[in-house]
Amino acid sequence: MMTSPENNDAAATDARPVHGRAALRRMLEPVSVALVGASPNAASLGGRTLANLSTFPGRLYPVNGRHAELAGRRCYPAVSDLPERPDCVVLAVPQEAVEALATECAEFGVGAIVVLASGYAEVDEAGAQAQQRLVTIARRSGMRVVGPNCVGVAHRGAGLLAAFAEFPPGPAIVGARVGLVAQSGALGLGLSQAAEGGMSISHVLTCGNSCDIDVADYVAYLAEAETCDSIALAFEGVGDADRLSRALALAASNGKPVAVCKLGTSEAGRAAARWHTNTATDVPGGWTPLLAAAGAMPVQNIEALMETAAFLAKAPRRRAAGRGVAVLSGSGGTAILAMDAAARHALATPQPGAATAARLAAAVPAFGSPRNPCDATAQATRNPESLLECADALLADPQYAALVIPWGRSQPARLMDDIDAMAARHGKAVCVVWMSQRLESATTEKAQQLPHVALFHSLDHCMAALAHLVSSPPPLAQGLRPAE
Amino acid sequence: MMTSPENNDAAATDARPVHGRAALRRMLEPVSVALVGASPNAASLGGRTLANLSTFPGRLYPVNGRHAELAGRRCYPAVSDLPERPDCVVLAVPQEAVEALATECAEFGVGAIVVLASGYAEVDEAGAQAQQRLVTIARRSGMRVVGPNCVGVAHRGAGLLAAFAEFPPGPAIVGARVGLVAQSGALGLGLSQAAEGGMSISHVLTCGNSCDIDVADYVAYLAEAETCDSIALAFEGVGDADRLSRALALAASNGKPVAVCKLGTSEAGRAAARWHTNTATDVPGGWTPLLAAAGAMPVQNIEALMETAAFLAKAPRRRAAGRGVAVLSGSGGTAILAMDAAARHALATPQPGAATAARLAAAVPAFGSPRNPCDATAQATRNPESLLECADALLADPQYAALVIPWGRSQPARLMDDIDAMAARHGKAVCVVWMSQRLESATTEKAQQLPHVALFHSLDHCMAALAHLVSSPPPLAQGLRPAE
Repeated sequence: MMTSPENNDAAATDARPVHGRAALRRMLEPVSVALVGASPNAASLGGRTLANLSTFPGRLYPVNGRHAELAGRRCYPAVSDLPERPDCVVLAVPQEAVEALATECAEFGVGAIVVLASGYAEVDEAGAQAQQRLVTIARRSGMRVVGPNCVGVAHRGAGLLAAFAEFPPGPAIVGARVGLVAQSGALGLGLSQAAEGGMSISHVLTCGNSCDIDVADYVAYLAEAETCDSIALAFEGVGDADRLSRALALAASNGKPVAVCKLGTSEAGRAAARWHTNTATDVPGGWTPLLAAAGAMPVQNIEALMETAAFLAKAPRRRAAGRGVAVLSGSGGTAILAMDAAARHALATPQPGAATAARLAAAVPAFGSPRNPCDATAQATRNPESLLECADALLADPQYAALVIPWGRSQPARLMDDIDAMAARHGKAVCVVWMSQRLESATTEKAQQLPHVALFHSLDHCMAALAHLVSSPPPLAQGLRPAE
Repeated sequence: MMTSPENNDAAATDARPVHGRAALRRMLEPVSVALVGASPNAASLGGRTLANLSTFPGRLYPVNGRHAELAGRRCYPAVSDLPERPDCVVLAVPQEAVEALATECAEFGVGAIVVLASGYAEVDEAGAQAQQRLVTIARRSGMRVVGPNCVGVAHRGAGLLAAFAEFPPGPAIVGARVGLVAQSGALGLGLSQAAEGGMSISHVLTCGNSCDIDVADYVAYLAEAETCDSIALAFEGVGDADRLSRALALAASNGKPVAVCKLGTSEAGRAAARWHTNTATDVPGGWTPLLAAAGAMPVQNIEALMETAAFLAKAPRRRAAGRGVAVLSGSGGTAILAMDAAARHALATPQPGAATAARLAAAVPAFGSPRNPCDATAQATRNPESLLECADALLADPQYAALVIPWGRSQPARLMDDIDAMAARHGKAVCVVWMSQRLESATTEKAQQLPHVALFHSLDHCMAALAHLVSSPPPLAQGLRPAE
């Protein structure tokens, strides 16, 4: 059922500050966590959340009056019985029980609560009023409230999975790290599955109905966190666009690039959003200028979000002097496709200078192309040295800001190490585009985990990201990867 | 090195017929195959091709004067020593040895030869002349010549892998089958890897330098073959655009839809193509009108090709009366994204009629949306009956030609069976869009293998295909999946 915007947005439209790291630290970097509604039933909400929290390296307190012990831990009857004030309390309880528990937590000095229950502003007027009372508790006490109607949050650097959803763990967090902010829990879950392909996703932060904490707060938190290198943001709307602008500006000034997928770009999409979270999806002048002014990069569709964010995490901090894109391939067909995609995104693909051309001619077989695109031919697959020599020659050419390597077949994973090192040495963006329908391999996983070489599965996504890179105004050009 | 177009295209611009199934049957449906240059060295060209041919169910003859037996088979000194005239002979020999062998094969009555060697028109003038001599042999004898400079062909229905490249086998060929035609071998290899995700790819037909057989011939063959349901075509250019038009028209009149990715849509891409295969990439008036007139569907980028072709293989033969698209989701966020993508492709997404709305309202929880998009909420994950009831209600609404189900999390594979059966019952297109970065699962593989439900990994690819479906002129609307 759709409720009126006034009820749903009342909390969000007043002039509260953007909650950055100081405000969200207890929630997202907790030393102690309690779970109210912890359950021995593995299929229940409380049981699934308990399992997810079981690897938390800090102090974890199950709370449930019907058990003395759960999962090998002492179980407490109530939050106020705990031996300390927990930083973060997850409420895995029915909607009816939430308000009294929220009050108890606020009075006890809890840092933040995560409300999983639904049945609030997304349902009816009574739910909207119940949600507003949670806001009042948050404002009075300073205790932060995540949700309600929320799947939870994950912060892998803190070993925290305060969620009933099973976010995929993925491999170890290495290389360039993406912090993911998703208003929708289901979308966050799907997007976070990029971790299974090797992407280092440091955070998955969802906010459900956003009664107190919304995507702007999460962006501000990540802007100030040292545990991620870029931010991926998917959102429908916010109650106060100015708060989001400020959060994005904070990210830009902290050198933390943001890729954004705005949901509800169409009238039909906005109508659906009003039925969903009922957050304001329009801003005067439209979202694109607002996002651009704040230095964020809007992506063309949701499929582009994660790989674009990973690219931004790896892209060099200083934009190169040249604005051209060079293409290096072992296959003529993929080289042509790359040029077509570059043209679609209005990227310049100049021919190499004389010195570069001479180096290419020496490295490429007679039936290859010592030009841009450089077709090093399938021989490059068997002779990585010639491929690397071509890459080095193209990256040394001052006309080029970036090198794109579309690959149509598996390449040895170790080659990625050499390419990554070369990207770092030249301080230019290097993108491998996996031109295969077989999307997972040891090589792609390796590329995801390296700090400089970016991996795309779509030439269009790649060229859109490079177009953003080379056309960025100075504030954004500065807003890339901090020095290490 | 780039050669002049005259040399390279001379063979292709004369008025030879389009070689359909009758002309290519011995090559692609052989009873007997010989491999010249068969080798015990598994890493060599001849050894790799021998391994690929080893599962051929017909008669296979290794030919190599230095061995009496290879891979458990009697080995012959020459093609003319074979006990029969083989339908197809693969020449895994150096360029210098090809011409004499081609002449021997033609005189012996071989149906077709596959020339893997490079060193022809793609290299220099001498190579172009050598290639022209192969054309002359083909024209005089009627023996078909594939290549040169070609990775080979695969036809899974015939158990034929006449290639040195290892095309992925994928699971059994079931459901709707896609025949893949790729001018570039490397591209064909990458695209064919969709088989590993469960797509039924019946053929992988590459043509390298296309001296005698080009993509037009392959399209004509597949148009007449009963072993595939749609055609995926990726090509740079053809010597004679009219031949390709005729082949596409044949496919349309045989009810075999074709998805096309034309390489070289940009000036820079066309320049790269001239360096690559040097086939003519331009036609008067441009390719898009030509392809549209022939009833083919151009895709927006190479990443869309395979899933669009699989969709076309599964789409109902008769276009529904309505032209609207309905969206059914278990997540509000993905529903909004689907509406945005529909709007990008100018698809109508009308609200359901009164009877449909009443059925939806009865099936959807209070906090869901009994409208278009229909958010059946996450409860649908736990209660497939309500999801199926919503799907049935929407498909019964005459306004809708198609139903799109974007899913952000794993769904049970068996649900796909029910959805597939429902698509067949209503005779409408049903597309599942896998809104996950984890691209492989038992559920996606299941969906790929079902005959009616189409699987996409991109909302944009899905909506582009549906826009093609609902806006097709009558010839194309007829040109879909023959009655079973």
